Amino acid sequence: MERSKIEITYPDWLIKGPWWSSRFGTDADKVDLAVQLARTNIEHKGGPFGAGIFDNASGELLAVGTNLVVNQCNSVLHAEIMAIMMAESRLGAYWLARNAERPQGVVLACSCEPCCMCVGAVVASGIEQVLCAATNSDAQAAGFDEGPVFDESWAYLERLGIRVVRGIHRALAADVLSDYRASGGRIYIPNRRAGNDRPDLD
Amino acid sequence: MERSKIEITYPDWLIKGPWWSSRFGTDADKVDLAVQLARTNIEHKGGPFGAGIFDNASGELLAVGTNLVVNQCNSVLHAEIMAIMMAESRLGAYWLARNAERPQGVVLACSCEPCCMCVGAVVASGIEQVLCAATNSDAQAAGFDEGPVFDESWAYLERLGIRVVRGIHRALAADVLSDYRASGGRIYIPNRRAGNDRPDLD
Repeated sequence: MERSKIEITYPDWLIKGPWWSSRFGTDADKVDLAVQLARTNIEHKGGPFGAGIFDNASGELLAVGTNLVVNQCNSVLHAEIMAIMMAESRLGAYWLARNAERPQGVVLACSCEPCCMCVGAVVASGIEQVLCAATNSDAQAAGFDEGPVFDESWAYLERLGIRVVRGIHRALAADVLSDYRASGGRIYIPNRRAGNDRPDLD
Repeated sequence: MERSKIEITYPDWLIKGPWWSSRFGTDADKVDLAVQLARTNIEHKGGPFGAGIFDNASGELLAVGTNLVVNQCNSVLHAEIMAIMMAESRLGAYWLARNAERPQGVVLACSCEPCCMCVGAVVASGIEQVLCAATNSDAQAAGFDEGPVFDESWAYLERLGIRVVRGIHRALAADVLSDYRASGGRIYIPNRRAGNDRPDLD
């Protein structure tokens, strides 16, 4: 065994950002932060995705996430996964559904609709509210493979009682993805169905 | 910000196990290890799921994973996710598809068909071969919510050129799940559709 430990860290700019002292009252406020994080992450050589997890009652920011797949050489580190792991670490809980301490639960806001992995992570973490900006098709158009997410996937979440709102600030968020692609940003999950079977590696 | 780092570690027994010096030639050998890890993980208070990632050419074990959601208070730490993160850490790569160093790619063997999160993680990691033992329905029967995984999800993987073989050692692996349930093992992802809206917490 060469390695037996993985360290996942926030970049300094995420730790030091002004967002920690703000309150995010509305759905639009929450998604706006996720999109802002996505755009800022590109400037820091990360993928064009951002997310935040908020206490639904107070609007307090509990955790943020950005795509750090390339930065930390870990394909699991999508923005939503980062935010979920950091929120659970902070709250000391692996299940984020409503409870006595958080009677209105938490809200996950994403700069783009979650991929298959992150849809599954919502179910596995007990999150009961998801807000999305750009669409799965916007991500595909930028070159990313979002995996098997179907209309039926969203219906499944709704049957679990999960509130999903899509399309908030979509144009703003889709611009982040297209700007990333236009500037030669790295596509770390190639779209194999389009005949692109290799990611953009160094 | 209270925390800005997450450490994910192998338990000692995974580090010290005899599997690291073995070769796993056949599909059945690989799945057998995944099922063995699932069963042993229960003895160590983990969830009833195991996985391994192997070099497809040599049968060398590159990484193992077991479900550590409860142990490490992190809902993302399914067996497959652990194995993928550890394999990528070891290989220094966030994309596990065939390349010059691994001309036959890697194989992910799972004691149970991957949930929605882990199906997505396969796509996001570039893994091209997946071997499964117990079925999604076996996991559901034991009380776990596997999330939105449909026949169309498997078809999507096949269209990407991913080889998926299901049902290897199924009975052996289904026994692990039913034994876990029968012994009062904790269900950390409740089946909300069955009216069970809370996990088994302390």
